[in-house]
Amino acid sequence: MKEYLQHDEWSIIEKGFKPEYNRISESIFSIGNGRMGQRANFEENYTGDSLQGSYVAGVYYPDKTKVGWWKNGYPEYFAKVLNATNWIGIDIEIDGKSLDLASCKVAKFRRVLNMKEGYLQRSFVATTKSGKKVKVESKRFCSIVDDEIGAIRYAVTPMNFSGTINVTPYLNGDVKNEDANWEETFWNPVKVVVKNTRAFVIAETKKTGFQVATGMKFEIAQKGNIGKLKTSKIKTGMYAGASVDVPVVKGEPIVVYKYVAILASLNHLPKDLLDRCKAKVKQAQQIGFAKLLKAQQKAWAKKWEDSDIIIEGDIAAQQAIRFNIFHLNQTFTGVDERLNIGPKGFTGEKYGGSTYWDTEAYCLPFYLATTEEKVAKNLLIYRYKHLEKAIENAAKLGFDKGAALYPMVTMNGEECHNEWEITFEEIHRNGAIAYGIFDYIRYTGDKDYLIDYGAEVLIAIARFWAQRVHFSAPRNQYVMHGVTGPNEYENNVNNNWYTNYIAAWCLEYATEAIAYVQSKAPHKYKALKEKIDFKEAEELANWKAIRSNIYLPEDKERGIFLQQEGFLEKALEPVSALRLEDRPLNQKWSWDRVLRSCYIKQADVLQGIYFFEEKFDLPTIQRNFDFYEPLTVHESSLSPCVHVILAAKLGKQEKAYEMYLRTARLDLDDYNNDTEDGLHITSMAGTWMAIVKGIGGMRVYDNTLHFNPFLPTSWKAVSFKIQFRGKTILVKVTPTETILENLSKESVAINLAGKALELKGEGRVAV
Amino acid sequence: MKEYLQHDEWSIIEKGFKPEYNRISESIFSIGNGRMGQRANFEENYTGDSLQGSYVAGVYYPDKTKVGWWKNGYPEYFAKVLNATNWIGIDIEIDGKSLDLASCKVAKFRRVLNMKEGYLQRSFVATTKSGKKVKVESKRFCSIVDDEIGAIRYAVTPMNFSGTINVTPYLNGDVKNEDANWEETFWNPVKVVVKNTRAFVIAETKKTGFQVATGMKFEIAQKGNIGKLKTSKIKTGMYAGASVDVPVVKGEPIVVYKYVAILASLNHLPKDLLDRCKAKVKQAQQIGFAKLLKAQQKAWAKKWEDSDIIIEGDIAAQQAIRFNIFHLNQTFTGVDERLNIGPKGFTGEKYGGSTYWDTEAYCLPFYLATTEEKVAKNLLIYRYKHLEKAIENAAKLGFDKGAALYPMVTMNGEECHNEWEITFEEIHRNGAIAYGIFDYIRYTGDKDYLIDYGAEVLIAIARFWAQRVHFSAPRNQYVMHGVTGPNEYENNVNNNWYTNYIAAWCLEYATEAIAYVQSKAPHKYKALKEKIDFKEAEELANWKAIRSNIYLPEDKERGIFLQQEGFLEKALEPVSALRLEDRPLNQKWSWDRVLRSCYIKQADVLQGIYFFEEKFDLPTIQRNFDFYEPLTVHESSLSPCVHVILAAKLGKQEKAYEMYLRTARLDLDDYNNDTEDGLHITSMAGTWMAIVKGIGGMRVYDNTLHFNPFLPTSWKAVSFKIQFRGKTILVKVTPTETILENLSKESVAINLAGKALELKGEGRVAV
Repeated sequence: MKEYLQHDEWSIIEKGFKPEYNRISESIFSIGNGRMGQRANFEENYTGDSLQGSYVAGVYYPDKTKVGWWKNGYPEYFAKVLNATNWIGIDIEIDGKSLDLASCKVAKFRRVLNMKEGYLQRSFVATTKSGKKVKVESKRFCSIVDDEIGAIRYAVTPMNFSGTINVTPYLNGDVKNEDANWEETFWNPVKVVVKNTRAFVIAETKKTGFQVATGMKFEIAQKGNIGKLKTSKIKTGMYAGASVDVPVVKGEPIVVYKYVAILASLNHLPKDLLDRCKAKVKQAQQIGFAKLLKAQQKAWAKKWEDSDIIIEGDIAAQQAIRFNIFHLNQTFTGVDERLNIGPKGFTGEKYGGSTYWDTEAYCLPFYLATTEEKVAKNLLIYRYKHLEKAIENAAKLGFDKGAALYPMVTMNGEECHNEWEITFEEIHRNGAIAYGIFDYIRYTGDKDYLIDYGAEVLIAIARFWAQRVHFSAPRNQYVMHGVTGPNEYENNVNNNWYTNYIAAWCLEYATEAIAYVQSKAPHKYKALKEKIDFKEAEELANWKAIRSNIYLPEDKERGIFLQQEGFLEKALEPVSALRLEDRPLNQKWSWDRVLRSCYIKQADVLQGIYFFEEKFDLPTIQRNFDFYEPLTVHESSLSPCVHVILAAKLGKQEKAYEMYLRTARLDLDDYNNDTEDGLHITSMAGTWMAIVKGIGGMRVYDNTLHFNPFLPTSWKAVSFKIQFRGKTILVKVTPTETILENLSKESVAINLAGKALELKGEGRVAV
Repeated sequence: MKEYLQHDEWSIIEKGFKPEYNRISESIFSIGNGRMGQRANFEENYTGDSLQGSYVAGVYYPDKTKVGWWKNGYPEYFAKVLNATNWIGIDIEIDGKSLDLASCKVAKFRRVLNMKEGYLQRSFVATTKSGKKVKVESKRFCSIVDDEIGAIRYAVTPMNFSGTINVTPYLNGDVKNEDANWEETFWNPVKVVVKNTRAFVIAETKKTGFQVATGMKFEIAQKGNIGKLKTSKIKTGMYAGASVDVPVVKGEPIVVYKYVAILASLNHLPKDLLDRCKAKVKQAQQIGFAKLLKAQQKAWAKKWEDSDIIIEGDIAAQQAIRFNIFHLNQTFTGVDERLNIGPKGFTGEKYGGSTYWDTEAYCLPFYLATTEEKVAKNLLIYRYKHLEKAIENAAKLGFDKGAALYPMVTMNGEECHNEWEITFEEIHRNGAIAYGIFDYIRYTGDKDYLIDYGAEVLIAIARFWAQRVHFSAPRNQYVMHGVTGPNEYENNVNNNWYTNYIAAWCLEYATEAIAYVQSKAPHKYKALKEKIDFKEAEELANWKAIRSNIYLPEDKERGIFLQQEGFLEKALEPVSALRLEDRPLNQKWSWDRVLRSCYIKQADVLQGIYFFEEKFDLPTIQRNFDFYEPLTVHESSLSPCVHVILAAKLGKQEKAYEMYLRTARLDLDDYNNDTEDGLHITSMAGTWMAIVKGIGGMRVYDNTLHFNPFLPTSWKAVSFKIQFRGKTILVKVTPTETILENLSKESVAINLAGKALELKGEGRVAV
């Protein structure tokens, strides 16, 4: 755990240069716009430790799988998030020596992520070995108004000399992924152009053949005037830059403006890329940095208007939740159903791929409640479009008749992950895909989603479960062997309660979906039936037989569900009895020891209770929580939020708050010692849930918003806005009252702490 | 399955050139002498498909581990069997073109492995593109008289021309391993010398720093006279050769003799290597090819004298068993306790490492019964010398107080394997190490082995088991979670019967061993106790508590032991119900499907019953056999032999013979489509067991040899010799009688089919 960042309500602030934390800061201060993203690398040359990262959404490389022992059915490749052309580079040379913070004396270093307005700012004073002192102030952002544009303002002031500073803005496509399995480079050059103050690099990914055009135009201003520049062209490989000697006067800044466009062949024909990239660069330059930034600030103001959470009386908590919301909004904007939410977003390479079950299980609620309906819907359609590949994936593992198994990790619908205990066994993810549909419809009321997309996915998933269980004669029940539940500290177990439960639920929900489509759109139903050869009577009967007689392990005496068969045979000792030096278990213990232990990586039974809360009475929830919570080590960032929500429901406010603290500043304080790899984007949505569903007690039942809030004792107030079926509701909780405000014109029914209310248009109620 | 080899009692014969089977033949026709080995690669250049392989025992390279997802406790490297300097090369050039069977017309190709006399022979007639026809006859062997010597006789006869043939004998250290994880080379040059007809290459392994000196001297004879040669030296990198233009006369052969010495720094100081290698080469040359071969033939005659099995009436079976015995004798000779039996011996790279539990569980009985005592003893001492590393290995996994976990795969005592389900969980191997000690003592009567070596190993193993179990409160018994049994088609199961059983047995046997040492060598016992801080009363009491109350899953109704807890909950369908296209399962099914199925890769419960047969009554053995046999797919080459032995014991002679057939010609007929990677050396010992312990019914109980033989109906007779405590017993089974012959001077007690006999010195009995 590191606490080197300043607390501030709206910004993340790093004061003083800490090279040893540079990779961490590079992650934390990342910027993005859903279409591209950039780690907080320095513009100028830096020879210190750094993970360079410029990422373009949807562009990936199928890196040949690295595996010690191949198992039949493993995927051939792992789709990697690609480090793409470096577009931020502005090299500075003084006295023929590169300005490099690794070899200068650095003072007044300050890095600020302005979350309110959506930009990254950095300033420092550096003294070179030859004694030249310069002040640098940079500002950059990825536009969320035009998500193909990036812009940089980079000012250098000579503090103790006049003379010449050499400035070289550049693009560099000769980049690598640190996580390349075989130390390959992933890009081939297509075209590299340098013309005066403009440069373009078009690079193509090997194998996948994505093209990305990156273009830049730079200007240099002195005393507010943009001067005409005499440039020297530098072009080697996929590096394209232009060097300028700028005469400088002590104390007078030179300001470099760099306008960048990044266009990918996902959105443009390859033949058009160069022209469009040129046009886009020109457009950005014509608008100019100031106006681009103004538009950025305005757009971010709108985002905050919709999604902000205000915590009064606790700056650290306030900063943390805004940090999470900021990054969620930077990562996925919902404009393109081919994109999704990578576990590291645009902040690092780790975990590759793009989509885990995190999206449905943890991220969907955030986007449902803070953005337009289509954003969440696009996350669902992403999976609909992958249905065919999910069916192929199941077929590779021996399933047939249209059964679908969605992959554990994917970019394009194909499985990327290759550990048998995950790839082949952590199949509960299939349930989360179905749950996502259910959750979306419950929230939006858009039941017709079933007609066009949902039912087909649900049937394919149901078919998978129907084949994955088998009937056990001695038990006289359906059982499911060889699975890994959400708690990945158990592998290859039989009858994981969560998996069996969600499987049975999927069979039921698919049955309901079919009935709905059948009644609402009989023609479409008929067409679907034919398309997928759905043997209605037979399959429905089989599903019913399974779901009504599936084995759900429980311990009657304790009144708890069993995480899996035989769980109680383990040596049960609470986490509190562990020695500090044994944590985190996955770094300190051998895998067999982790597996044999009773310790739970992330909510498993409790995840199921969270998903299907309304099916269980409070004492049941309480007993399970009391049993499993003390055994949970929360070594997944996705774990604490579920515990917050359940603890809050059970009135364990202190416990809820304690758990909330573990999730809120996970990356800001580098709890898990891994922020340098990138941020835990999907768990940030969990933090949002912890506040809104946990502290706020928000639920949707019977088409109605429910709240049941409490206020942590250290807070003065918390308030958040919820978008719900076209209406905006403001919820504010203070020590004495809960205020609900309907910011829309129409009235809305709300349930507050068990009491039904009708909130008139623009109405307000305080309880 | 391929049946391209000729049946012959004493030889393996390949007629006709089949490039597509070349890698298979290269494995099958391998030669070796326990110190070095050589695949049946061609002497002359060959550009067709080939796996070059020259191996030097005990010389390995720690290749950086390749693993997709690292788990804490995985080893950093995998020790690879090293492809070393090619010593067989003799390039032939005619008209400036290399003689290369891939580009010639080949006739009369014949490759013969003369098992009786221990050499490889090859002949062919090749017609080059320019129409030149040559006959080639080669013969080579690795001396078992002096295991640092190899020799080649290579004759070329011009069939339709006179003129010049260029001959280039060479050594080549610039070789690679095909299975290198990172495509590295493993050797660095130390010295390369070419002097006239002699050449020397000293190469050193990277990281491990083993040096191997390879030297050669060649001669060329025409009309029986060895001529003086004018050579051109060729030296590049680690290649060292000498080229000679030899005038040839149509129809008159030129004969190249190549004498080779291979010396490793395991056995010589690096500084002495070159001189000793020179001396050894000279010595070989002075003895000459004919005499070297004669000595080889004599030495092999002695080996056959001791270890032959004669099957009358079935040439294929006769050939097969000799093939197995031949390779076992080529692989391990027992002269060096630092060496062991690699799963591929000296016939391929696959599986790297050198030592698996195969050694103790499958190989030991062969060496016990066919060689001097010290050979088997050296296999045990190998493990004794690795004890410290085994304790370190256990410590890495979180065990303490001197507990030892022997590695799954090792070269020097350190673990090499890195799949958690094997490395960390397939811990029953620890039991096999203990069983090896028991088996050795049972056979030899050398109980004092416990004093000097055995007890210390047994205590460390017992300590491991005592920590690996835990007490289950609900079951009120000791349980063992998270293991993989011998049947690797189950991973991470709880309470594998075999593992629990052998664990309890180890605790018991260690206790007995302690008592023995205590009574026989009290001073040594005291020293040992102090050395290992053995808390006698406490530890013994704990072991007793565990072994007397360990959970051994069984099904009372069926009267069987359960492979693991919950085994009966699986869908039970016999192997016979599987479709042909589903086999082998591990190539056709995804891993989860394999794991969920009831199918058994290799004997598991039955392995335990085989090991501890005397503890179970016949009906129990029968019930377990009848239950598990139909579920066993035998996709490990180590499986059928155990089934043969048990089937034979149960009087199921047809079943026994059917199973025997699966093991006997495994490599010769390439049953598993993998002979090209090398031979299944350790399973060859299983085949030997299948005959001697299965068909012959041999056991040792109460210091007495027992036999209970039967004769497969298709055989006329089978006979084999057994070395037992200094005596040699010949057993011959015919359709009408069993003949036992005591070839020693002293009398020996024998039990035949339940009847005790006293066989006088040189006595004979027919029953």
